[in-house]
Amino acid sequence: MATSEPRATGGDQDPDSANLRPPSTTYEYAWMHGCTRKLGMKICGFLQKNNSLEEKGRLAGHKSFLSCDNSDRDARFRRTETDFSNLFARDLLPAKNGEEPTMQFLLEVVDILTNYIKKTFDRSTKVLDFHHPHQLLEGMEGFNLELSDQPESLEQILVDCRDTLKYGVRTGHPRFFNQLSSGLDIIGLAGEWLTSTANTNMFTYEIAPVFVLMEQLTLKKMREMIGWPGGEGDGLFSPGGAISNMYSVMIARYKYFPEVKTKGMSAAPRLVLFTSEHSHYSIKKAGAALGFGTENVILLSTDERGRVIPADLEAKIIDVKQKGYVPLFVNATAGSTVYGAFDPISDIADICEKYNLWLHVDGAWGGGLLMSRKHRHKLNGIERANSVTWNPHKMMGVPLQCSAILVREKGILAGCNSMCAGYLFQPDKQYDVTYDTGDKAIQCGRHVDIFKFWLMWKAKGTVGFEQHIDKCLDLSQYLYNKIKNREGYEMVFDGVPQHTNVCFWYIPPSLRGVPDGEERREKLHRVAPKIKAMMMESGTTMVGYQPQGTKVNFFRMVISNPAVTQSDIDFLIDEIERLGHDL
Amino acid sequence: MATSEPRATGGDQDPDSANLRPPSTTYEYAWMHGCTRKLGMKICGFLQKNNSLEEKGRLAGHKSFLSCDNSDRDARFRRTETDFSNLFARDLLPAKNGEEPTMQFLLEVVDILTNYIKKTFDRSTKVLDFHHPHQLLEGMEGFNLELSDQPESLEQILVDCRDTLKYGVRTGHPRFFNQLSSGLDIIGLAGEWLTSTANTNMFTYEIAPVFVLMEQLTLKKMREMIGWPGGEGDGLFSPGGAISNMYSVMIARYKYFPEVKTKGMSAAPRLVLFTSEHSHYSIKKAGAALGFGTENVILLSTDERGRVIPADLEAKIIDVKQKGYVPLFVNATAGSTVYGAFDPISDIADICEKYNLWLHVDGAWGGGLLMSRKHRHKLNGIERANSVTWNPHKMMGVPLQCSAILVREKGILAGCNSMCAGYLFQPDKQYDVTYDTGDKAIQCGRHVDIFKFWLMWKAKGTVGFEQHIDKCLDLSQYLYNKIKNREGYEMVFDGVPQHTNVCFWYIPPSLRGVPDGEERREKLHRVAPKIKAMMMESGTTMVGYQPQGTKVNFFRMVISNPAVTQSDIDFLIDEIERLGHDL
Repeated sequence: MATSEPRATGGDQDPDSANLRPPSTTYEYAWMHGCTRKLGMKICGFLQKNNSLEEKGRLAGHKSFLSCDNSDRDARFRRTETDFSNLFARDLLPAKNGEEPTMQFLLEVVDILTNYIKKTFDRSTKVLDFHHPHQLLEGMEGFNLELSDQPESLEQILVDCRDTLKYGVRTGHPRFFNQLSSGLDIIGLAGEWLTSTANTNMFTYEIAPVFVLMEQLTLKKMREMIGWPGGEGDGLFSPGGAISNMYSVMIARYKYFPEVKTKGMSAAPRLVLFTSEHSHYSIKKAGAALGFGTENVILLSTDERGRVIPADLEAKIIDVKQKGYVPLFVNATAGSTVYGAFDPISDIADICEKYNLWLHVDGAWGGGLLMSRKHRHKLNGIERANSVTWNPHKMMGVPLQCSAILVREKGILAGCNSMCAGYLFQPDKQYDVTYDTGDKAIQCGRHVDIFKFWLMWKAKGTVGFEQHIDKCLDLSQYLYNKIKNREGYEMVFDGVPQHTNVCFWYIPPSLRGVPDGEERREKLHRVAPKIKAMMMESGTTMVGYQPQGTKVNFFRMVISNPAVTQSDIDFLIDEIERLGHDL
Repeated sequence: MATSEPRATGGDQDPDSANLRPPSTTYEYAWMHGCTRKLGMKICGFLQKNNSLEEKGRLAGHKSFLSCDNSDRDARFRRTETDFSNLFARDLLPAKNGEEPTMQFLLEVVDILTNYIKKTFDRSTKVLDFHHPHQLLEGMEGFNLELSDQPESLEQILVDCRDTLKYGVRTGHPRFFNQLSSGLDIIGLAGEWLTSTANTNMFTYEIAPVFVLMEQLTLKKMREMIGWPGGEGDGLFSPGGAISNMYSVMIARYKYFPEVKTKGMSAAPRLVLFTSEHSHYSIKKAGAALGFGTENVILLSTDERGRVIPADLEAKIIDVKQKGYVPLFVNATAGSTVYGAFDPISDIADICEKYNLWLHVDGAWGGGLLMSRKHRHKLNGIERANSVTWNPHKMMGVPLQCSAILVREKGILAGCNSMCAGYLFQPDKQYDVTYDTGDKAIQCGRHVDIFKFWLMWKAKGTVGFEQHIDKCLDLSQYLYNKIKNREGYEMVFDGVPQHTNVCFWYIPPSLRGVPDGEERREKLHRVAPKIKAMMMESGTTMVGYQPQGTKVNFFRMVISNPAVTQSDIDFLIDEIERLGHDL
C-alpha cells in the first residue's frame, strides 16, 4: 500500500492529545507542542527571505498560516507550518536543498519525543495501552505495520512514529516495575541521541577515537570499583549480560585449554561449569552454544534466600572429579534475577582457589551496588573473581543496552578471540594500534554503548549513582515492611531483601484460611497471572510474576527507576488488592 | 575533579563555530543555531508567566537577555537564555519541577546534533580532526575524559557533547569511504532517536508489542526477497553480522547433531566447516567460540576475483570425509569484505545438496543487492540456502546496528537456543506467547534494532532502497572506469566490480617503471599506509587499505552512502595523487 495521505486515526489516537492528561497540565502541554512549531516558523521565515526561485518552487508544498502566536509578550510573529504530506524521504539530506526539510522533520520528531517523555513521567498517563498481537497486526485505527514498495509521505512517517509510541510500553513510567531495566534517564537519553547521530562503530580507534578511549577509561574505573589493583585488567562492552557471561566461559576455557581455540572441544577433557539453580539461564545457554553441553552445567543448591551453599559446590566439584571430568568454571551470582540473592563470593572464591577453577561473578543485576558504600559489602570477595559481568543498563538506570564484561588478566580476551584479520586491523597505521580493540570481541562491528554511560557518570558523579541505588533499596525495604505482616500477603522468603527484589504472593480473600494443599496451590498459581492480565488491560501498572522451583506463581517486585516514590509502591499494592480482591 | 565551571576550550574548539564552514553559509548557520535558543525563550517566557514562587526561586540560575532577535520580520521577542551552569542532572526529570529544565536541556542537545548533521553533509567540513590517543587522553583544550565522584554542571555536559562530536569521525560525510557502513540516513536517525526514547527490550511481546511485530513482518519481507516460499521461516535481528554468522553455525550443528546442545561437542564426530579464504573472519571466530576449533574451519580457494571455486569445495569435502571427519556447513559469501565478490551460490548449493551439508549465505555486505532488480542476479541460488546473514546497516544505509539472521526452517532457532526460563517466559500470560521471541536468541535482553529499519522501509519503499543501491553501484563503476587505465593506478583484479568495492594500488611516480620485485613490493606496501596517514592528518577524506594474501597493501574503495557524488570520487583520486605524488 502506498499513499501520501496519512491514515487518519480515531478519537483517542493521538498520544499528543491532552485527553489522557490531567486538566491541570493541558496548557503547559499545548505550550510545549508549540515549541517546535516555532522552530518551523523560523525556518520558513528564513526560506521566505533567502531562497532562490528554484527553492521557492520546491516549497510550494508548505502551508502558510499567518497568525500572532507569541503569548508571552506583545510580539508579532509570522507563523508558517510545514506541510509534510508532500514531502518524502528523498527530499531530505543529502538531497539538494534538503537541509531545511531535514531540520523541520527532525524537530517535528523531537516534538513527538519530548511530549512522550513528559507524559512518561506523568502518573495520570497509562503505562501501556494493551492490545493483542492480532489486533495490532490487523491495523489499529489505521496504524499499518505492513511494508510496501512505494514510499510514504513524511506526514505518514510522523503519524507512524506517534502510533509506535502510543501502542508501546512506557518503560520509564514510575509505575512500570516489570523488568530489571526501567526508568528513562534524561542524560543517558541525550547520550543515546548523540550516539546514533555519530553512527559509528567501536572496532577501531580510527573511526571511534573518542568512544574507544571513553570505553577504556570507564572500564578501568569499573575495575577499580571491583577492587582489582590499580584497575588493571581488560574488558569490553557487549550486547547484554548473556553475551558478557558467554565471554566469561570462553576465556575461562581459553585460560586452561587454549588449544580448544584451534582444535575444538575434542582437544579438552570433559569440562564442567557450575552455577546456582537460581542463576540466570545465560550460563546454560553459553554451555550449549560453546559446545560444553547443558548436562555439563551443574546447578548448585541454594539456601532459603536463593544463595549458593558453598558446601554443595565443593561436594559437586569432588563428585565431578571422581567421575573423571574436569571442573573448569564457577559462576557466582551477585543479585539473582528473581530473589535478588547475592551468592557468598568469598566462600566460593576459597573453593575456586583450592581447586584451581575460574571464578566468574555475574553482577549483571547486582553489580551496581558496588557504587554504594552502604551496600557494596554484599559483593565482598568480588575482587577475587577472574571475570565479572556488570550491566549498567539495569540497576544504574543507563539506557539499553550497556553491559560490561570485565577481566582481571590483561590480554586474555585478545588471546581468546583474535583472528588478526589484516583487512580490519592493519599493524602499519600511524597511531598506536593497541587501541584497536575490535579483535578482542566475538563481534566485528560493535555498537557504541559507552557514551551514554560515560555522560551519565560525568553528570551524576559516582555519588549520584550511589544516591540512586541507596534510594531504590530504601524503597524496596519500604515495600517489604509494608506487606510483610499485611493481611493477604505471604513473603516468598523471610527477611529484608538483599537487592530491590521483593517476592510475595497476594492471597485473595477466597483463599485466606484455606489449608495448604494441592487445590490451594493450583488456585494460588493462577492468581498472579490473572491480576497481571487485568493490570495490563487497565494499563495502570506492570509488575512481573513467575514460578520458581516448587513455588507457584508469585510477584517479583523490582525497583531501578529513580522516578519511583513511596506513593507508587502504595499504588501498586492498592492496585493488586483492587484487581485481586474477588479472585 | 568536580566543577560546575565549564572548561573553556580554545579558539577552534566549538564545532558550532563557523570558522570551518564556507563564508556563504555562515548566515544560514547562525540562523539554525538560533532555533533552539528561540525554544529556550518560549520556555522561559512560559515560566515567567506561570511559575509559582517556589519555581521562581529555583529559576534564579537562569540568565535573562532582553533583545530583539527576530531577523525576518519586525517582530519583537523577549529572549531568555537558560543558564545551565547552575543546573545539574538532579534538576531534570523525575525531579520536582524538572520538566522545564529537561526540555531545555534536550533541546540544547538537539541543537548540537542538528548542527552536527548539517555540517556532516557539508563538504567544506573536515571528515575528522585527527589526534593521537595520548593527545586525547591528556585532555584536548580542556576536554577531560576522566570520570569523577562529583557531578558536572549541565553546561559542562553540553560542552562534553560538543567535544565528543568534534574529536570524532563523521561517518556520514560524503567523503568518508572507510567502512562498509557509512552515511547518515535522516529517517533512520529519527528512528534511532525514537528507539532510545522508548528504551525497551525485544524479548517479550509484553514490553515491546509494536517492535516485536515490526520485526516479524520485516523478517518475513526479507525472506520473501530471498525467495523462500511464502516468506516462511524464522529469524532474528542480532548485534551484527559476526553474531548472525555464529547463529548459522549453531543451528546447522543443532540440525544435524541436536544432542550437542545437552551433551556437548563430544557427542558429535569431528565436524568441519567450509568458507572462502576471502570470507569474513567471523566464521573462524564462530568455529573457535563454538568448540569446533579453527583447524576445522577449512578455507576454500578462490578465483582471481575472489569467488569460491566450487570444484575446490567438492575436493575438500571428499578429502575431509576420507579422513573420517564430518563436513557440516558451507558458508557462501555474497559480497566479500575486500573484493566485494559473490560466491557462485547455485553451484555451491548443488554440492551442499549432494553431500547433505548446511548452506549458509553471508550476505552481510551483499544482501542489500536483493532489493535491486538489476543486481539481485548476483545472489542467484540464495533461495536454496538454509540460512542467510543480511546487514541492513551496511549497503542499505540503516544506522548501526541492524543485522538479520534468517533461517528457512521454522522452529529451529528456538529448538537450538531455548532454555525455557520460567521467570522470563511465562506460558500463562493473557496473550499469544508465541510472540515472546526472546528464548530463540543467545541473548536475553536484545536491543531494538528493527524500528529504524522499518521506518526507513516505510519512508523509502522498496523502490527507494533499490535506487540507492543502483546509484552506489553506478558510482563504483564510475570510479573503476576512471582509474582502470589511468597512469599511476593498477587494479587488484580485472573487470567491473561485482559490488561497490574497487581495489587498486596507487603507484607514485618514483615507482612507475620500476620492475616488479621484492624491493618494489616492499615500497609499494608502504604507499597506502602513508597516504592514509596523511589523509587522516589533513582530515579531507578516508578510505581503507589492507593487504590480501600475497598482495601488498592496496586501497579498497567502497560506497554505501547516498550522499556520495561523482565529484567526491574525483576528489578522492585527486587527494590520493596530491598526497602520494612525492612518495
